[in-house]
Amino acid sequence: MLSDIEICRTTPLSSIDTVAYNAGLEKTEYTPHGRHKAKVSLNTLERLKENPEGKLIVVTAITPTPLGEGKTVTTIGLSQGLAKIGESVMACIRQPSMGPVFGVKGGAAGGGYSQVGPMEELNLHLTGDIHAVTAAHNLASAAIDARIYHEQRLGYDAFSERNDMKALRIDPNQVVWRRVIDHNDRALRMVTVGQNQPEKTVNGYERQDGFDISAASELMAILALASDLKDLRKRIGKIVVAYDLDGNPVTTEDLQVAGAMTVTMREAIEPTMMQTLEGVPTLIHAGPFANIAHGNSSIIADSIATKLADYTVTEGGFGSDMGFEKACNIKANMSGKTPDCAVVVATLRGLKANSGLYDLRPGQPLPDSIFQEDAQALEAGFENLKWHLNNVAKYGVPAVVAINRFPQDSEEELNKLALLVQAHMPEVKVAISDAFGQGGNGAVQLAKAVVESCKEEIRFAPLYKLEQPLEEKIMAVTELGYGAGAIKLSEQAKVQLAQFKAQGFDGLALCMAKTPLSISTDASVKGAPNGFDVDIREFKLCAGAGFIYALCGNVMTMPGLPEKPAFMNLDIDDEGNIVGLS
Amino acid sequence: MLSDIEICRTTPLSSIDTVAYNAGLEKTEYTPHGRHKAKVSLNTLERLKENPEGKLIVVTAITPTPLGEGKTVTTIGLSQGLAKIGESVMACIRQPSMGPVFGVKGGAAGGGYSQVGPMEELNLHLTGDIHAVTAAHNLASAAIDARIYHEQRLGYDAFSERNDMKALRIDPNQVVWRRVIDHNDRALRMVTVGQNQPEKTVNGYERQDGFDISAASELMAILALASDLKDLRKRIGKIVVAYDLDGNPVTTEDLQVAGAMTVTMREAIEPTMMQTLEGVPTLIHAGPFANIAHGNSSIIADSIATKLADYTVTEGGFGSDMGFEKACNIKANMSGKTPDCAVVVATLRGLKANSGLYDLRPGQPLPDSIFQEDAQALEAGFENLKWHLNNVAKYGVPAVVAINRFPQDSEEELNKLALLVQAHMPEVKVAISDAFGQGGNGAVQLAKAVVESCKEEIRFAPLYKLEQPLEEKIMAVTELGYGAGAIKLSEQAKVQLAQFKAQGFDGLALCMAKTPLSISTDASVKGAPNGFDVDIREFKLCAGAGFIYALCGNVMTMPGLPEKPAFMNLDIDDEGNIVGLS
Repeated sequence: MLSDIEICRTTPLSSIDTVAYNAGLEKTEYTPHGRHKAKVSLNTLERLKENPEGKLIVVTAITPTPLGEGKTVTTIGLSQGLAKIGESVMACIRQPSMGPVFGVKGGAAGGGYSQVGPMEELNLHLTGDIHAVTAAHNLASAAIDARIYHEQRLGYDAFSERNDMKALRIDPNQVVWRRVIDHNDRALRMVTVGQNQPEKTVNGYERQDGFDISAASELMAILALASDLKDLRKRIGKIVVAYDLDGNPVTTEDLQVAGAMTVTMREAIEPTMMQTLEGVPTLIHAGPFANIAHGNSSIIADSIATKLADYTVTEGGFGSDMGFEKACNIKANMSGKTPDCAVVVATLRGLKANSGLYDLRPGQPLPDSIFQEDAQALEAGFENLKWHLNNVAKYGVPAVVAINRFPQDSEEELNKLALLVQAHMPEVKVAISDAFGQGGNGAVQLAKAVVESCKEEIRFAPLYKLEQPLEEKIMAVTELGYGAGAIKLSEQAKVQLAQFKAQGFDGLALCMAKTPLSISTDASVKGAPNGFDVDIREFKLCAGAGFIYALCGNVMTMPGLPEKPAFMNLDIDDEGNIVGLS
Repeated sequence: MLSDIEICRTTPLSSIDTVAYNAGLEKTEYTPHGRHKAKVSLNTLERLKENPEGKLIVVTAITPTPLGEGKTVTTIGLSQGLAKIGESVMACIRQPSMGPVFGVKGGAAGGGYSQVGPMEELNLHLTGDIHAVTAAHNLASAAIDARIYHEQRLGYDAFSERNDMKALRIDPNQVVWRRVIDHNDRALRMVTVGQNQPEKTVNGYERQDGFDISAASELMAILALASDLKDLRKRIGKIVVAYDLDGNPVTTEDLQVAGAMTVTMREAIEPTMMQTLEGVPTLIHAGPFANIAHGNSSIIADSIATKLADYTVTEGGFGSDMGFEKACNIKANMSGKTPDCAVVVATLRGLKANSGLYDLRPGQPLPDSIFQEDAQALEAGFENLKWHLNNVAKYGVPAVVAINRFPQDSEEELNKLALLVQAHMPEVKVAISDAFGQGGNGAVQLAKAVVESCKEEIRFAPLYKLEQPLEEKIMAVTELGYGAGAIKLSEQAKVQLAQFKAQGFDGLALCMAKTPLSISTDASVKGAPNGFDVDIREFKLCAGAGFIYALCGNVMTMPGLPEKPAFMNLDIDDEGNIVGLS
C-alpha cells in the first residue's frame, strides 16, 4: 500500500471554490488561502441563522495506545461513508499540532484513503491558527515581564507618574501565565527567565517559568469556545495572568494587551475549510490534546457545519473519558448544541493493549505480537470498550461502535469483536470500518448504523450543572464519570480551590488534565478500573475560557521527543515533494 | 490627516489576480492567500530566465532615530513615483517582525499614502513566513536537547545500540544554537532550560540558553540568500548547532532534522506578492533587523522582480553602514546582481538627532523641539548625511538623496537641506519626497532623479573578496567601511576566530551585528565619527547562511519592550476592524 502522503498526492482534489460551493457557501463567505484551503467568514452564520440544525456526531474511542486508534481516520471515513449513501455531510476536525507531527504520533489528517488533503498543508502550518495562538499567548508573557521590569526598575510611583498609568505591582512569584510553543520540547517544561545582565539585578525579574505546548494555551480553549469576535475579545480580556502583591488577580485587560492579543487572533477565529480525499467539505479549527486541554473542534465550526449539512461528524480527542467528556460537559453546555450520536472507535490492537497482558513502553513501538490472534487478550481488553459504552450512555447519547480495521488484523477476530459487542450490549450498533483501506466505501455500513442511531431519542444529560459548587463538579466528573473512589487534593490544590471560590469563580466549568492512556490518573492502569484515587496536584484558573483546569497525577503540559523522533523521516525529494510525513 | 490604518482601509485595492496580471505573472505562477496576497512560485524564474534584468535600486538612509526615518515610506513612494512617470516597476520589502509592531517602532508597511496594503495583514502574520522560520529554528533546538537527554540518560553505547544511530556526544556547554521567538521579550535574553524533575538529574541537561528575535535566526538569513529549494535544503543541512566533546561541529544534518526544517520552510521560500496603495506590485520576503541580521529582502524576490520589471526598488535596513553594507558585501556577492542606484533617505529630524545637540533617550518619544527650525543642528547633523553619501560612493554606486518630508517640517529648512547637498556633493542628485502625504505624486521628482542616476555607469566594488582571510574582511568592513581606527577582539572572539579558521570557514562572508544608532559601535556617538574602536565581543558561525556573524559592543539580539508599548493602542472596534496599528 502507498504511504499516506503518496495517496494524498496522487488523489486529485477539487478547487476550494468547488468544495465551498458544494458545502453551500456563497462567494463572499470564504477567502481562499492557496488552492485547497479557505477561511470561512463568520458572516455565514448570520445568513444561515434560520436554517434548521443538522445532526452532530461525536467520534470518540476506547482508551488508546500512544499511537492512537484511528479516530480521525474514522471521522473522515464516516463522513465519506455518509456521502456515499447520499447524505449531506461535513466533517469538523482540529488542527494538528507540530509537536506530535515531529514527535511520535505523526500527523492528524487521518490516513490511508480517509484523509483531509493536502495532508502536508493540514499537518504543518495550515492557515496559521496555532501560530496566531502562540504569538498572542507569548505577547502577554512579554507584556508581563516587561511590566515587572519597568515597575521594579523605576519604582511604582515613578513608573506610574512617568507613564500616567497605574502600577500593577505584579508579584513575580505569582505569575500564572506560562509561555507556549508548538513543539514537543521537554527542556522547556521548567526554565528560569530574566537572567541577562544587567536586568537580572532588578528585583523579582529573574523568575521560574515554563513552556506548555500551544494547544494547552487558554487561548486555544477560548478559540474553541468563543461564539464570535466580540466574545473572543471579551474572553481574552478576562484571562488572569498573575496576582498582585495584595493577592488580587491581574488580567490581560489590566496589562492593556487584550486588544493586541485579539488583533493577533482575528484571522484565527475563522475556521479553515478543506476537503477529504473524496471531496467532503471539512472544517478545521482549534487544537488537539484533549488530555491537557479542552481538545475539541470549535463551537463556531460546528455551528457553521450543522447549519450547512444534515450530518456533521466531529471528534473529541482520546477515549470517552477525555475529549468526549469535555464535548459534553464543557462544549455542549456553552454552545447549547448536544451530540446526537457517539461513535466509539475500537481496534483489536487497542483492546489487547488494554488487557494488561503486553509489555508496552512509552516512546517505543508496539510489539508485533499484539497483532496476532489472542482470544484471552481480546476478551480482557473488551472490558475497556464496555466501560466507554457505559460512559457514553451516562450522557444519554446513543452509541455506535466502529471497529477500525488495521491491515494486519484477522477477519475472524474482527468478527469476534463485533459479536462480543452484540452479545454484551445489544442496544449498541456495531460496524467494522475499513475507512483506511477503502475510504468511504469501507465505512458505508458504519454510516448506515450512524443514520439509524441518529433517529433515536436523545435525553442528553451532562454530568454537572454550572451552578453546582466546584467540589461537586469535580466529584461528578471523577466519581460519576471515571468511576473513581476518592479525590485527593494536594495542599496547593486545596488552597487554590478555596481561593477561586472566594474570588467568585465557583460557577466555572471543570477541565481535567490527566493521562489519556488510562481511565484512571495512572497511565499504567489498563482496562476498566474503578474505585481508584484521583490525585489533583494543581488547579489553574482559566477565567477567559470559562473553566477551572485540574492537573491530575503526573500529567505533563509539555510533551517530549522520543529517542528516534518522526522528524528524522521527513525531507524533500529531488522534485521538492515532501517525503516521510504520515 | 487620517491614521495609517484608516488610509489603508479606505483605499480600494485591486484583487491579487489583477496585481499579478499587471506584474506579468501567469495564472499558474502564483497561489492566492486571501484576496490581497499571493505566494509566487519559483517556477516563474524558469520561464523568465531569458528576460533581461531590470535596474535594482537599494533604498538606504542616514543614521536613523529609533523610530526610523521613513525608508519604507520612501521605498513604496518611489515605486509609486516611478509608476506615475510611466515606468514598469516593482518593490521588494522585508516582512515586518511582530516585535517592533507591538514594541516602539510600529509596523513596517510604510505609512500615509505610501503603504503596502492591507497593512494589517502585512504587519501581523502575512503568509506565515516568520512563523515558519521560528518553527523550523525551534525544532532544531528541541532536537538538540532531546538528543542530549536521551544519550546522557541511556549512555552513549546503549543509546547507539538501541536506536541503531551514532551517539553525537554533544557537549552541553557548547550548544551554539539559541532558541528564537518573534517578540521583543527581554526576559528571554538569557534563560536556564532543562530544570524540570526528574530530567534535571540527567547530566548536562540543565543548561544556559537564550532566545533571539526570529529575524536574527540563521534560517532567516538562509531564506534571504538561498537561490531555490534545493539550495535551501543544502544550506540548512550545513548549520552548526553545537560541538561534540571532541570539539567537532555538530550540524542539523547530524541530528537528522535538516529535512524536517526544510519541509517546515517549504512554503516560506516563495515570496508573497501584495500591492502598494497605488497598485504597484510588491514582493515581501525575509525579515528585518539589519542591525543584528542580514536584514535585506531576499535574492529570490529580487530575481523575480528584476526579471518582471524595468525598475525594482528594495531597501536595506537602517543606515548605509548597516543594511546597505550587507546588500553589497553579502547579498550582491552571492546573487551576482549589483545595485544600480542607492537612495539615501534623510530627514530634518534625523539629521538634527545626529547633531548631538538633543537629549534623546531610548524608549522615549523624540522631543517636540527637534521639529523646530535650527540651522546649527541641521548643519551639524549634515555631516552624517555626507558620511553616508561617501560610504555609498565607496561601492561605486551612484546615490540620490531623498529628503523625506514630515508634516511638521518647514519648507525653508527642507530647501536648505537640498541646497546643502548640492553645495557639498554636486555629483549627487537630491529630491524632496512627500510620499507620505501625497503618495506617488509626492515622489515624482525623486523618481526622475533615480531614472537619471540609473543611467550612470556602475563600477561596483564590494569592500572585500571572499577569498581574503577573515581578519582582512573584518578590517575591510570596519576600517574601510565604518572608518574605525582599531578592532578590539575579546578573548572569546579571538579563540572563536582561530577555531573557525582551523575548521575551514575562512572563506565565509562577514555579517556585522552592531547598534544602528551610530556609525560606530556605541549608540551614543552621533554624527560622523571616525578613528573609533570597534569592540567585537563574540563571533558566531553561520555556515548555512555563509557568513561569520560578529557581535559588536553591547548589541542585543533580542529587543525589549518599552514602558508604554505600542500594543497598548491596538484593539478591535465594534465592527471588528483593527484600530491603533501604524
